[in-house]
Amino acid sequence: MSSSDIFFGEFIGTAVLVLLGGGVCAAITFKRSKAYEAGWVAIAFGWGFAVLTGAYIASGPSGAHLNPAVTLGLAIEGGTKWSDVPLYMGSQLAGAMVGAVLVWLAYYGQFKAHLADPEFVSPGPKGEEGLVDIEKQASPKAGPLLGVFSTGPEIRNTVQNVMTEVIATFVLVLAILTQGLNDSGKGLGTLGVLITALVVVGIGLSLGGPTGYAINPVRDLGPRIIHSLLPLKNKGGSDWGYAWIPVVAPLIGAAAAGGVYKLCFA
Amino acid sequence: MSSSDIFFGEFIGTAVLVLLGGGVCAAITFKRSKAYEAGWVAIAFGWGFAVLTGAYIASGPSGAHLNPAVTLGLAIEGGTKWSDVPLYMGSQLAGAMVGAVLVWLAYYGQFKAHLADPEFVSPGPKGEEGLVDIEKQASPKAGPLLGVFSTGPEIRNTVQNVMTEVIATFVLVLAILTQGLNDSGKGLGTLGVLITALVVVGIGLSLGGPTGYAINPVRDLGPRIIHSLLPLKNKGGSDWGYAWIPVVAPLIGAAAAGGVYKLCFA
Amino acid sequence: MSSSDIFFGEFIGTAVLVLLGGGVCAAITFKRSKAYEAGWVAIAFGWGFAVLTGAYIASGPSGAHLNPAVTLGLAIEGGTKWSDVPLYMGSQLAGAMVGAVLVWLAYYGQFKAHLADPEFVSPGPKGEEGLVDIEKQASPKAGPLLGVFSTGPEIRNTVQNVMTEVIATFVLVLAILTQGLNDSGKGLGTLGVLITALVVVGIGLSLGGPTGYAINPVRDLGPRIIHSLLPLKNKGGSDWGYAWIPVVAPLIGAAAAGGVYKLCFA
Amino acid sequence: MSSSDIFFGEFIGTAVLVLLGGGVCAAITFKRSKAYEAGWVAIAFGWGFAVLTGAYIASGPSGAHLNPAVTLGLAIEGGTKWSDVPLYMGSQLAGAMVGAVLVWLAYYGQFKAHLADPEFVSPGPKGEEGLVDIEKQASPKAGPLLGVFSTGPEIRNTVQNVMTEVIATFVLVLAILTQGLNDSGKGLGTLGVLITALVVVGIGLSLGGPTGYAINPVRDLGPRIIHSLLPLKNKGGSDWGYAWIPVVAPLIGAAAAGGVYKLCFA
Repeated sequence: MSSSDIFFGEFIGTAVLVLLGGGVCAAITFKRSKAYEAGWVAIAFGWGFAVLTGAYIASGPSGAHLNPAVTLGLAIEGGTKWSDVPLYMGSQLAGAMVGAVLVWLAYYGQFKAHLADPEFVSPGPKGEEGLVDIEKQASPKAGPLLGVFSTGPEIRNTVQNVMTEVIATFVLVLAILTQGLNDSGKGLGTLGVLITALVVVGIGLSLGGPTGYAINPVRDLGPRIIHSLLPLKNKGGSDWGYAWIPVVAPLIGAAAAGGVYKLCFA
Repeated sequence: MSSSDIFFGEFIGTAVLVLLGGGVCAAITFKRSKAYEAGWVAIAFGWGFAVLTGAYIASGPSGAHLNPAVTLGLAIEGGTKWSDVPLYMGSQLAGAMVGAVLVWLAYYGQFKAHLADPEFVSPGPKGEEGLVDIEKQASPKAGPLLGVFSTGPEIRNTVQNVMTEVIATFVLVLAILTQGLNDSGKGLGTLGVLITALVVVGIGLSLGGPTGYAINPVRDLGPRIIHSLLPLKNKGGSDWGYAWIPVVAPLIGAAAAGGVYKLCFA
Repeated sequence: MSSSDIFFGEFIGTAVLVLLGGGVCAAITFKRSKAYEAGWVAIAFGWGFAVLTGAYIASGPSGAHLNPAVTLGLAIEGGTKWSDVPLYMGSQLAGAMVGAVLVWLAYYGQFKAHLADPEFVSPGPKGEEGLVDIEKQASPKAGPLLGVFSTGPEIRNTVQNVMTEVIATFVLVLAILTQGLNDSGKGLGTLGVLITALVVVGIGLSLGGPTGYAINPVRDLGPRIIHSLLPLKNKGGSDWGYAWIPVVAPLIGAAAAGGVYKLCFA
Repeated sequence: MSSSDIFFGEFIGTAVLVLLGGGVCAAITFKRSKAYEAGWVAIAFGWGFAVLTGAYIASGPSGAHLNPAVTLGLAIEGGTKWSDVPLYMGSQLAGAMVGAVLVWLAYYGQFKAHLADPEFVSPGPKGEEGLVDIEKQASPKAGPLLGVFSTGPEIRNTVQNVMTEVIATFVLVLAILTQGLNDSGKGLGTLGVLITALVVVGIGLSLGGPTGYAINPVRDLGPRIIHSLLPLKNKGGSDWGYAWIPVVAPLIGAAAAGGVYKLCFA
């Protein structure tokens, strides 16, 4: 596997993953979207099939990690060389940022209409109402738009939020290690891509409730950087106080999965 | 692959695709349907499994393009001969038109009851209410029935609408090129058909919000022609001013995918 | 394939199909069910995975037709011997009847509570209200419970109802013929079972609106016979006037699919 | 297959199964969860993909029974040695208990907020209202939290509840025996894992209405033990009077499936 294969696979695959994943958040958040309020089943399948699409594209070129937690798990297991890890993770972060920009472009008019809607931005009782609504997406400390980009907890508590993300990522990476990505790092077969995507649907349905299941450092950090950079009026804060949790906790979960895998199954 | 294989595969496959795809729009739009208001999850899976069914049927005979954007992407990539392109696209358009007629036949009574319902056709406050409802299906410039046939934007803006369709089709065609349709144009294997269908579910959930995701020129144009021809009272306009966007934008997206594929992965 | 393999495969497979299919109708109809009012997406996936389960069980023994329309299509195509057709169809009908009895046993308490609820059975305004609700399941001519057993049209019109069932069954049988059941009648592979099940989900989402998509003569007739035999108070009529349509129309659709297959693809 | 493979596969696989399965119950039950009230479709897919994830992990090491009913069916059929049965079942119970603890940890803040909410715990009219809500999860005899851990009937009747669980488990185990787990007990292939998971989705949609479909003794007993041990204020009773039904009935169903399999298909 050449460096350019790794770069293009991870960069494009992660961009597609974040485009479709952020897209489904946009689709159910914006009033002027045909999928407005389609509900959590739509979110879970939307993110799962975002993984499916990105991984299907990247599976041949780079083995479709698309997630630093997966790369770390595979490095611990031995399927990925430690020397390739920085290239994998850098390409993933770059891809995630581009994916978030593409969400903004695909929903350009909806972003504009949303931010112009006084229900969401004006202060006072009416604005409060809008904020209550947005609390389903992110915490009150986050701006009204952040839920389209990054995750946020329903109940803000560092230990609890870390615990949830560690557990959810542990499940994801253990599933991938046990059967999925093979020794040569050549990647999942097509059926493995499908199963992994459905595992992500399952994690979303089951463990997404408390924190919105980042389970992938770049899926959260990349779009958050873009949120902070985009010149959008009334976009609100990027909640940087929370930002380290969806980066660090998934890596802890992945390391735990790598350890359990080597101890119990290798 | 003989010309008659290509014709029958693409004609019948696309007819089935548009029958089931238009069918799910009818199923959730008409009050006298058991699936009335089943929501966006139903739409996304309905269209995805429409692709599954049409592509499963056509996969052996013609390679199951069923979409001029896919044919264009494959021609750029080299899997399909340029000289076969007109036959592919013509068969697809003919199939899409027949599929739209079959939707009308399958929902014949529902069409009749819908158009006779004064809430939808009479002017004045009550009619306004009906039109608000139908705006979820199509733009105000479109007649009340058009959403069962063709796509329309939630926010009418040429640049934005083109951008959304380009991005969504880019994802579809890149996914197909990267792993799917093989060099000989013999078509996806059964597992490839399944993955492609789920990719379409994902694109619908994630990128369908702004424009209703045509991502296929004939899926939009074929039914629109039928809408303009059907002798239905009160059917309203066919929104020809918008019609070029779901034809041209998917082709741009497909060409971009073909280019990226050759540049990065070939 | 021995006669006893055909009998046991088709009998048990169809019983499971109707048990799970009728089960999901019961699950969303009865107030004392945890899935009460789960909606049309639940119905479509419930019936599709009913096909998956029954066909997965019967695929080895009998080739998993589970449907006289499929048997007819395969006999026309040549994959099934005409002399085996009566055994296939008889086993299917017997299985469908047993499956309907099992739905009643699995939901025994719910049936009882439902029939004792005056909202559903008493005449007058309150009863009318109940009947409006049940119209989503079956036509006004049907008793309040029939929707758990058999299909019924939203709009009662012979030509329209036949047309809808012919079109929907045509799609199902053509999909099976084109790639699915192979010449030797040995049955679908596991992947073929999965695709066929998802095709049924798609047909339900897209073409189930007008008549409830019998697309299988015994799926409708078997449970209807059981409905007429079960000693349930207030169960209402079995709507025998409609009963021939979901038997005859699917066979017409299957014959058409067999013809198109031989003409276009064989 | 070594004893340690069986232990680790069944222990970890069942823990993941119960973590994701209990997780989706928590996700839709707790108000401070992003998936609050996501509905029965979420439950059915959540449990099905819980099976998918657990079985994908355990398939290689232990053959992925994850369920004493499956182990019993396979022992009757001959694919699993009777001498291995205690190890299988013990590992499964231990895993199920750990899985239930993990649900509590992943939703720690939600558990706390839920139990502090006077709507759920105070007596009187307001509390009654809360209890009505919780009846969708479990019976009135159960404490308000039990539905996140274990199953309970909508209508409490021993014969009916046993019958429902017997029928539902019969379908599950017959499907697994007929095609799934092979003679050597080496486990389902990846495609078999996927089909089995979707069969579980189907059973949930169709037969989950009356009792919440335990169809697995340890899935119910393990979390119930944890519920009774956790030091949670106001958690209410563990409904031990019902606890034997989801243990015994699935074993009866599995034995029946084993018998029918040997009689009809072996």
